[in-house]
Amino acid sequence: MATIRSGSDLPLEPVSAGEGTQRQTLTHRGSGAGFHMRRFVMQPGGGMPRHTNQVEHQQYVLKGAARIGVGEQVHQVQAGDVVHIPAGEPHWYRASPDGPFEFLCVVPDDEDRIQLLE
Amino acid sequence: MATIRSGSDLPLEPVSAGEGTQRQTLTHRGSGAGFHMRRFVMQPGGGMPRHTNQVEHQQYVLKGAARIGVGEQVHQVQAGDVVHIPAGEPHWYRASPDGPFEFLCVVPDDEDRIQLLE
Repeated sequence: MATIRSGSDLPLEPVSAGEGTQRQTLTHRGSGAGFHMRRFVMQPGGGMPRHTNQVEHQQYVLKGAARIGVGEQVHQVQAGDVVHIPAGEPHWYRASPDGPFEFLCVVPDDEDRIQLLE
Repeated sequence: MATIRSGSDLPLEPVSAGEGTQRQTLTHRGSGAGFHMRRFVMQPGGGMPRHTNQVEHQQYVLKGAARIGVGEQVHQVQAGDVVHIPAGEPHWYRASPDGPFEFLCVVPDDEDRIQLLE
């Protein structure tokens, strides 16, 4: 059964490990072929501290700009960029102070646990 | 190994079954946890005829508006909307004449074959 959801009907929930960071569940774990989609919104200057996840992330930057640390590297990303973070790789986000930063994050349905590193 | 790709470095390729439709491969089949991401760009009034795929689609509308047919239903979608099309379900796209229509489409890595129905 196909599903069409209006983005404005989907709640944005605060991400407790983040700062000025919200998550919107777009598709649900277990609803499809083993993966699901979330959208993250970070307020200007907000972000997530250095952490690991047990699942890989395939991400697409929707809006704004940010610095992203992955492993020992720091990258400047902007709308249209693609970020692929392997499972277990330490990473962090810091949104530009100039405006909100938004990205899509697709993950496998496998169990995940976030571990903060700082 | 993490990968960061600038969207402007990724080529847009014509989709032969479509009309005014291009596809940008964002992540590659087999590069991760069993799924990969593509971006589609449809020129105003462009689209894809009614067809089926062997893999499900999880889609996020990035820009513009379109009519999308899924099964026997027709939906009007716009930026921020989420579309989930099961494997094997007939579907089609028609971009609004007012501007380009863009969406992200995440699919499992399983083999796919498109079958046109009209």
